[in-house]
Amino acid sequence: MIACKAAVCEEAGEDLVVKEVTVDPPEVGEVRVKIFYTGVCHTDEYFRSGMDDLKIFPTIYGHEGAGIVESIGEGVTSVEIGDHVIPSYCPQCRECELCKSPKTNFCEINWISTWTGTMPDGTTRFKDKDGNKLFHFMSTSTFCQYTVVSEIHIVKITEEAPLDKVCLLGCAITTGYGAVLNTLKVEEGSSVAVVGLGGVGLAAIMGAANVKASQIIAVDINPDKFEKALAFGATDTVNPLDYDGKELKDIISEMTDGIGVDYSLECVGEAKLMRQAFLATKPNGGFSCAIGATPGEQDLELASDDIQGRQITGTYFGGTKSRDQLPGLVDEYLSGHIKIDEFITHTFTLEEINEAFNAMKEGKCIKAVVKMVDDE
Amino acid sequence: MIACKAAVCEEAGEDLVVKEVTVDPPEVGEVRVKIFYTGVCHTDEYFRSGMDDLKIFPTIYGHEGAGIVESIGEGVTSVEIGDHVIPSYCPQCRECELCKSPKTNFCEINWISTWTGTMPDGTTRFKDKDGNKLFHFMSTSTFCQYTVVSEIHIVKITEEAPLDKVCLLGCAITTGYGAVLNTLKVEEGSSVAVVGLGGVGLAAIMGAANVKASQIIAVDINPDKFEKALAFGATDTVNPLDYDGKELKDIISEMTDGIGVDYSLECVGEAKLMRQAFLATKPNGGFSCAIGATPGEQDLELASDDIQGRQITGTYFGGTKSRDQLPGLVDEYLSGHIKIDEFITHTFTLEEINEAFNAMKEGKCIKAVVKMVDDE
Repeated sequence: MIACKAAVCEEAGEDLVVKEVTVDPPEVGEVRVKIFYTGVCHTDEYFRSGMDDLKIFPTIYGHEGAGIVESIGEGVTSVEIGDHVIPSYCPQCRECELCKSPKTNFCEINWISTWTGTMPDGTTRFKDKDGNKLFHFMSTSTFCQYTVVSEIHIVKITEEAPLDKVCLLGCAITTGYGAVLNTLKVEEGSSVAVVGLGGVGLAAIMGAANVKASQIIAVDINPDKFEKALAFGATDTVNPLDYDGKELKDIISEMTDGIGVDYSLECVGEAKLMRQAFLATKPNGGFSCAIGATPGEQDLELASDDIQGRQITGTYFGGTKSRDQLPGLVDEYLSGHIKIDEFITHTFTLEEINEAFNAMKEGKCIKAVVKMVDDE
Repeated sequence: MIACKAAVCEEAGEDLVVKEVTVDPPEVGEVRVKIFYTGVCHTDEYFRSGMDDLKIFPTIYGHEGAGIVESIGEGVTSVEIGDHVIPSYCPQCRECELCKSPKTNFCEINWISTWTGTMPDGTTRFKDKDGNKLFHFMSTSTFCQYTVVSEIHIVKITEEAPLDKVCLLGCAITTGYGAVLNTLKVEEGSSVAVVGLGGVGLAAIMGAANVKASQIIAVDINPDKFEKALAFGATDTVNPLDYDGKELKDIISEMTDGIGVDYSLECVGEAKLMRQAFLATKPNGGFSCAIGATPGEQDLELASDDIQGRQITGTYFGGTKSRDQLPGLVDEYLSGHIKIDEFITHTFTLEEINEAFNAMKEGKCIKAVVKMVDDE
């Protein structure tokens, strides 16, 4: 059992409290990881605020971490003590029917272990100093200096990768980039609209630029986001508020000879924007990806006429098979093919983690990285 | 100018009237076809009933015809007098950006010529005996003994093909079959649910069987349809009315180990059924095709959670490029790879065409074929 610090959310809507916790040793098939850096993400904030139905408290959030294996449980074969790793909320057991399918990156274990607040066996590895149990989050809980994660959630990466950067491959960057490459499979010469220019949206723009899309339209109601979007490869920017109430689908249509884009990605999480992004694609052959998760009961409403020649889907972790594909993304970063540093606008210490949340909500932040330890 | 008989719809909701009409010669780029046989389709009935917004009258309906080229206009090169042809409502100019794209079977001319009630130049070739103009329908108007069609809507087929059978490739069979092969690209070993067992649904079952889907679930509230569905290759049948109010998505989920099907096709045209068919697919990797067109303002409502790992699209003529692909379907019929005869439950003469509509609406009919001429 290790005693260390974690940022704990005691109740829905409360600030995180940095406090001492204990972390049990890894059991069979589990890995204990010393977390060096973690990103903060709107999904952490969504659950912290208690908007979800699960309402599991007290919890240790965090799912964009990177660290080093401290110990391994019995039967663990894919990593050793000292390996550099990214804990991924998207498991890959490599044995279930879904893992064997090229059509999905979901793993059958995903729904057992990722959203329950526990390890797959239903138990937890965290306690507060009074011995009360603390719940896990997304199988990763990277807001703790040590975390216990199932081996199928652990991605081994090269030791050359700076942990303060590649931690962000644990969610936002991989989701946006992967949605373009894996989910939509955007081709060279295509036109692409990206709605919402947070970390996911910028990563989608980066993906579209990397596959040599010919037109990349970046959309946000905050024009401060445009400079970065253009730096990431956008060819056009749109602030819908500048168009006097005109619908986004019509704005984009006019920018594409009245036809619409080949592909669109909604990176906000609003059903109305998903609909606009969908209708902004070509009526004949357009394909849209609704990346954002809509809170609550919002439904996307589509007429059969609109769907006749168009296609729509969502994505989970950008369609990325974590253990197979994340090491390659790390290599792409090291070779300069994908950017990570440029996403990072803010850095904080663990003690400052609530400031990281505030920065994220303010809109000037693309990604904030929290340093979890004092000793690197 | 040819004088001949046609079934004319004078006003919304009225029976068709078989009467003498005149048919102008084909102009530049046009072909005049002697129609020998035609199917009747729910789309004819939809427009006849006046449920559409266009309300173009008087009109000569019909879009599942087959015949022989009687004369050609200037500049026509792809067919000659005497060629056997299927007029297709889905044009293929082979020159526009859409025709050059492998991602769609829409042609840019489609929206100019198919739904206007006229030839692409805005004029008509039909008149009643008083010289009043009669509108075209879907560029084909096969309820006339002679019809004038743009060359880009004309598919040349082998003379060996029986016109009283292959006329049905003009719509229903190609739509259902093509949705499976072209739109969804169903693979061998997949599970497929087909909702609605009319001509389109049975053709979808035939497609799924031909690609060797391992489970084909046929759904209809009319159990009389099941015998034919099983003969076409269905492995299971479902009458949702037998399940005491249980939702169709749950019925299908239980039939597939709680997982759902790989693919589903809605062949009715109701938004609620489209939603059920969509949700009946696997949450991870499922793909649904909403074939039916919903009348009026019905919207399909989808939650972002439901779409995360699923995909949905519609189809137009089963994603079939008419002039490129229909001749191949005719050959498949002649070689016994696809059925057509088994769809035909009723035959009528032109004078009996209103009975064909009545049969179609009664539910005992799969496809009715109308003999347009006396001389074959």
